[in-house]
Formats: sequence, structure tokens, C-alpha cells
Amino acid sequence: MSELRQNPLSGQWVVYAPLRKKRPYDFHASERETAGLPERDTSCPFCPGNERMLPDIILEKPDGDGVSWMTRVVPNKYAAFESSCLEMNSENGPYAITPGYGYHEVIIESPIHNEDIPRMAPERVAAIVETYYKRYVEILADRKIMEVFIFRNHGKSAGTSLVHPHSQLIATPVVPAGIETKKKRAREYFRECKHCLFCDILRFERSSGNRILFENGSFVAFIPYAAEVPFELWIFPKAHQSDFRLISDTQKGELATMLKSVLGVLTQRLGDPDYNLLLSTFTRADRDDRSLHWHIVVRPRTTIKAGFEIGSGMAINPSFPEEDCRILKEGP
Amino acid sequence: MSELRQNPLSGQWVVYAPLRKKRPYDFHASERETAGLPERDTSCPFCPGNERMLPDIILEKPDGDGVSWMTRVVPNKYAAFESSCLEMNSENGPYAITPGYGYHEVIIESPIHNEDIPRMAPERVAAIVETYYKRYVEILADRKIMEVFIFRNHGKSAGTSLVHPHSQLIATPVVPAGIETKKKRAREYFRECKHCLFCDILRFERSSGNRILFENGSFVAFIPYAAEVPFELWIFPKAHQSDFRLISDTQKGELATMLKSVLGVLTQRLGDPDYNLLLSTFTRADRDDRSLHWHIVVRPRTTIKAGFEIGSGMAINPSFPEEDCRILKEGP
Repeated sequence: MSELRQNPLSGQWVVYAPLRKKRPYDFHASERETAGLPERDTSCPFCPGNERMLPDIILEKPDGDGVSWMTRVVPNKYAAFESSCLEMNSENGPYAITPGYGYHEVIIESPIHNEDIPRMAPERVAAIVETYYKRYVEILADRKIMEVFIFRNHGKSAGTSLVHPHSQLIATPVVPAGIETKKKRAREYFRECKHCLFCDILRFERSSGNRILFENGSFVAFIPYAAEVPFELWIFPKAHQSDFRLISDTQKGELATMLKSVLGVLTQRLGDPDYNLLLSTFTRADRDDRSLHWHIVVRPRTTIKAGFEIGSGMAINPSFPEEDCRILKEGP
Repeated sequence: MSELRQNPLSGQWVVYAPLRKKRPYDFHASERETAGLPERDTSCPFCPGNERMLPDIILEKPDGDGVSWMTRVVPNKYAAFESSCLEMNSENGPYAITPGYGYHEVIIESPIHNEDIPRMAPERVAAIVETYYKRYVEILADRKIMEVFIFRNHGKSAGTSLVHPHSQLIATPVVPAGIETKKKRAREYFRECKHCLFCDILRFERSSGNRILFENGSFVAFIPYAAEVPFELWIFPKAHQSDFRLISDTQKGELATMLKSVLGVLTQRLGDPDYNLLLSTFTRADRDDRSLHWHIVVRPRTTIKAGFEIGSGMAINPSFPEEDCRILKEGP
């Protein structure tokens, strides 16, 4: 069973998850070679035919053919959070503690071992977005959950342990410091300026223009003016929407094409770098909250956070967002 | 010239430092082999005899012999901050910006290329602490500086680009979000409990006992109850002291022996892991501030922050601090 302890200096919660020491790794070489991977791998727990290696199947989106499937949701075998944990807050000296109550699941994005998002047909990417949505809404029914995180770790330096295309979902019984800060700042901005901070960022980026990468009916992808790492990308819904649960069917389709474009351009221009993709939403926001606005962040892993960054919480970025955007559009 | 832009969502400042793209790297293999390094390396800018490779020498602590030196302070050739930048705050849409005014220096810890802190004579480690102190106090005289960070990156995954033993100093014209949060939380705790949060943490750790690694007259080294990463170590001065500038001569000597012990046990028990060491202090704290308390944090780099950690600001630690402390004391 995992346990949460809060660092009283930073307000950051730490999850102690001893199970995670036993995770498998299938990176043999230091380089990822998606091209050299087979379509099916008999030792991969996410490939069809290897269901005995899965603890359970929570959700399955069938393929049109009625035989096969498009996506699956399974429990994370090395879970940091479990819904079998009792929720009970307590204190220990100056520290707050709570058991690791919650959910930790894997979203298997495709039955095909070596087909990553840029190479998938658009309707298969749409099935991933639909699976995110479905499981997100289901977990929201559990009132003990405060925040739900959906994320995708791509490549070894981004923390992936298995190469088969997958995302993860973690639902936490506390509001983590990172979300608390975003909420607080967005609400202060709204009180002061009477505008949504996120809508203002989007307006600023569109009027500048030189950091906009893609735009479709519902979404804009750009390198933010204060990107923390080279080639960091934000995908904002154009419509003001506080929480991911409010996404419409049209938006779902356009998010799928946007994800395919954004991850495709990273592969094409930067040679498939490792990255983390995060759905940043506000799980318990009111439907009509005017200050919060869900979005997606993509962070390529090309730099290392060293002592200064860890100690100060500042980031050092060796390249300017305007130049990074030009490279993604035109090539180096 | 570098430029600072603030992320309005996180409050985090980002330093754009294009110079840093040109940093040298002398890690040829993926493994560090201190044992195999020479005492002097003709291509190392920090070795005696190679002064032509240094931009300048800001400070030098002579050795007793009058010929050689113990430590040197030099400008970081790939500086993220420079005191030649004009300081001038402005705004750009919803973003705050400011030039990268400040200091970025390297503290060369020894003339000997391959002698790291655990192998140094105690008086040589004391010379490093004295150099930290001297340069820290000198830079405090610049009233445009808000915070000074002293840190040590050890090993490639911790962000070092050169193996010759060295620390760095960065002085910033803003209070970074990480320090702002610590200050705020410590002050709230003091208002509520009428005690220093740091003194209470120390009291809690000493009464628990099973996470204390070393103690001497002035300092206690322990794995904190809510350590974010395996084998994270905190070194707290026993006396309540808000800012590093208040350190006494006795404390300086005892900090040197403590550093030697702490870094020595990491080498001995964990085989010289990569780590970041950070002096966490409160540069503009009043001499008699009762809520702030400087300290040192050592973070071995054995885990990767992936999507969930980046998005939530939570940490997942696969091992409990009590067990990590036992391993450092008794071996695995």
C-alpha cells in the first residue's frame, strides 16, 4: 500500500510507492528504434494474445470488426495509487499524511505494438481521446477524488518503461501543489483583470503570431512566450472551458487531429525526441467557472534540470520560443 | 544577453540563455570514472596552468605555501545571468519580463582535477565553505540582487558539464517561485504555531531518530520524513539562523566535516551516484527573522520525473526514507 506525506516546506505531496521498484524495462539499447520494432511482441503485456499478463481489463473500445479492439484501459500493475486504500488523513509532527487512495491506470492506445500516434489513422487517435474522456468522466463519479491526471511519457528519459503506445491516468485524493498554484494565480488574475488568464494568453499568442504552430476549428498549438524547455508546446481549446469533461464531440475529433499534427512535427523535425504530454485540467471546477481553462502541455526532454533549477524553481532554457517555432515550421 | 520571462500560470521565471547552448562536455563514456582521471588535465579550464582558458579570476584563496591556491572563483563562461545586463522590468501581454541581470560564477574547489570532496583533507573542504561564504557576502552588497543560490551538480545526469570538482553560484534579480513558496509556508506556520517550522522539523526528526544519519556540534544530517527522491538528505544547522551569512567560524568548520561525511557515505554505500547539492537560504531575511532557517539539500539522481510529476508537482518515491537511512548506515 502506498502512503502520501506532505513536504511542509514546499506543500508538495510525495507518494511512497514501494511497488514501483519492480517495474519492467524493455529498453535494451540507449536509443529507441520504433522502426525496428515488430507489430506484435510476445513478451509485451499490452499486445493482443498476452492478456494473461494483465491484472484486469477495466474498459475496452471495440474495433468496428467486432473481433479486435481499438483501445483498452487496464490497472497499472505498479500502481502509485489504489482505490483499495482507506482514505484517512492524519498528522505526524509538522507533516500531514494520507494513504495513497486513488486510481492509477494504463490506457493502451492501440493493439499494434509499433504504431505510434503520428503514424495512426485519425479515427484511431480519436478513439484514444474518446477513451481518455470516458474513463475521466467515470472516475469523476468517485467524490473522494480531487484531481485526475492523464499523461503520456514517450521514451526512456521521459520515464516510460514499455514501448507499446500507451498513456496513463492517475487520480489523486489531494489537490497537488502544482494545480493549486495554477488555480490560485488564474483566480487572482480574473479578480484583477475580469478576463480568463488562459484566454488572454491565447489572444496574446495569436496577436504575436510568431509562436503559433497549428490552428484548427477548435484548438491552437503554440510555443508559449515563457516556455520552460526547448520546443515546449501548449494546446489550448479556443472555447473557454474550465474542465476537460466539457469537451464536445466536435472538439474531440479536432483534438485528435491536433495531437497527430503536433506529435508528428516533433518526430519529423526533431527526430522523435522523448517527451511528456500532460492533460492539464481542473477536475472539480464548476461548469461555468470563468477563470479556469483546461489545456495540454507537451514537454520534449532535451535539457536537464540541475541544482539551480531544483533549488530555485526557475528554469533555464537555452533557446528562445520564437526560434524554436521557426525550426518546427521550416526545419533547422 | 539573457532575458527572463515569467510563466503566468505557475509564477515560475524562465531564463532564456542562448549562450548555454555552447557549453563543453567532457563526459565521453556514460560512466564517470573518477578513479581513472589524472591529477591534472591539460584540456581542463579549471586545472592550474590553463588560466588562459578562464575569462577572469574573481577571487582566489591562496594555499599556505604562497605558490599555489586552494579555491578560485571565476565567471561562468556560459552565464545564464550577467551583471552587465540592465535591470528594467516590463510587461508583454499577460507576461512579466526582465533582463537577465545577476551573477553566474564557478567555484573551483581544488587545483587537483580528480580529488572530489570525500577524498579531500578537511581543511580543503573548509576552504570551499569559506569561499562560498566570502563570495555570498560580497554579492549581497549589490542591492539589485534578491536571492543567491550556491549549488553543486555532480555527474552527467545531474547536469555537470565538467568533471573537475566545482560548485556554482547564481544571483537573481527576482525571488523565484520555489523560494517564495518556502518563505510563505514558513511564515504561515510561524504565525499559527509560534515556532520556526524548520526547528520543528529538526525536533521531530531527532525524536523519531530512524532517519538521522549524522550529527555533530552544529549540524544534523537526515533523510526527511517526506523525502522527494530516494536518499534525499537535508543538513540543518541546529542553531536557528535565517540566512547563510550568519554562519559562525565554528559552524563553517563543522559544515565542512559534515559535507565530507555526507558525500562520503553516498560514495561508499551507493557507488558515487550523481546528485545535486543546494544551499537553500533566504538572502534578504532579517538577522533576527524567527520563521526562516537556512539549510542544505542533497538530491541523488536515481529516479526520473515523468508526466505525472511534471503536471501535478507531486513526487513519486519508490522507497521509504526510514529504509533508505538504514541502507546508508548499515549497507544494503
